[in-house]
Amino acid sequence: MSRVRVDLNISLDGFATTTDQTPENPFGDDWGRLTAAYAATRTFRQRVLHDESGEGTTGVDDRYAARYFEDVGAEIMGAGMFGLHANPNDPEWCGWWGEDPPFHVPVFVLTHEPRHPLEMAGGTTFQFLTATPEEALDTATAAAGGGDVRVGGGASTVRDFLRAGLVDDLHVGIAPIILGRGVRLWDDLRGLEAGSQVTAESAPSGTTHVTFRRSVGS
Amino acid sequence: MSRVRVDLNISLDGFATTTDQTPENPFGDDWGRLTAAYAATRTFRQRVLHDESGEGTTGVDDRYAARYFEDVGAEIMGAGMFGLHANPNDPEWCGWWGEDPPFHVPVFVLTHEPRHPLEMAGGTTFQFLTATPEEALDTATAAAGGGDVRVGGGASTVRDFLRAGLVDDLHVGIAPIILGRGVRLWDDLRGLEAGSQVTAESAPSGTTHVTFRRSVGS
Repeated sequence: MSRVRVDLNISLDGFATTTDQTPENPFGDDWGRLTAAYAATRTFRQRVLHDESGEGTTGVDDRYAARYFEDVGAEIMGAGMFGLHANPNDPEWCGWWGEDPPFHVPVFVLTHEPRHPLEMAGGTTFQFLTATPEEALDTATAAAGGGDVRVGGGASTVRDFLRAGLVDDLHVGIAPIILGRGVRLWDDLRGLEAGSQVTAESAPSGTTHVTFRRSVGS
Repeated sequence: MSRVRVDLNISLDGFATTTDQTPENPFGDDWGRLTAAYAATRTFRQRVLHDESGEGTTGVDDRYAARYFEDVGAEIMGAGMFGLHANPNDPEWCGWWGEDPPFHVPVFVLTHEPRHPLEMAGGTTFQFLTATPEEALDTATAAAGGGDVRVGGGASTVRDFLRAGLVDDLHVGIAPIILGRGVRLWDDLRGLEAGSQVTAESAPSGTTHVTFRRSVGS
């Protein structure tokens, strides 16, 4: 049965976003530190950077990175993750991921501004929806062809889906850094663990992978 | 050389205190969930509960629990951890730990109200200090006889010492639960990891042990 999944990188103090972006450094240094273990994996290098050299880590972090892309039939993301907020006046903007985005499935971008769909290389399509989390999930599930639906981000979008009780599988990679500011993933989620199997596994990189897996039917 | 150490149990969302205490249940259910892995260890059962049956877990969690008591020459704690706030009008109050507290070293309780020292069984003495973190540390270091000084808690006291840059070794046991409210350990500590070696190790209990170890001289 199709499941709804979330994967996020967060800091030890629970921040899923960074705050040190500048025009010259649009992701900031903190983003690199937050995602370092994931970006070092062979899966990330192949899938996102199109690096076919086979380089990259292959241990615990790569196992979770590979899982990130498995069995996903459709993706939902917020306007910020697509980059609409950073590029509000560019009708040609196609997202952060280049001409061959790593998704290879239908991607539904939540936005209040209608835009034409984009057909990218590799099977990725971007469609723009004005919808509640429940409506977006219905649309994405229908498009997923029996595969899972991933809510990709950003943090605020993920929190909307978590608070609505729509997420079956949550994976967070916790980087051992204290960011001190940003959007907190865990706010207003007291008792999230109830009804879920929770696992924790630390990688040699210092990143700890925590998963919440909800039983089918609960 | 004597080091300053902290050990705390926190939730996945970073709370080091719980909020569901009632007069009938003075620690609350959440405290039990937050400290379950630690309280299940053989070390905790022996040292805190005086259980000599040898029962209790002996794996990863117990290794950190045993380390908790090793090489400590003196302890500092806040008035709340000693229980003064819960028992303000009881001049006979001797703390939460019974007649043979688990510390077995001089314990300095930070309070604005002078009290007479208490000599307990097993080498534990409680002395009451009105002092800044730096002053308390000087006093405790002198009493530790070359041993380490542990800042035992509670969360607010620990944060005072962390923010003052006085802690050499921090260990947190992160329970895989979302409490959603309480005192956050990590607030105002952006960049705490700088200059420290950081490790992360997950136990089969689901608790993840993270340590920050500052280099000597830094």
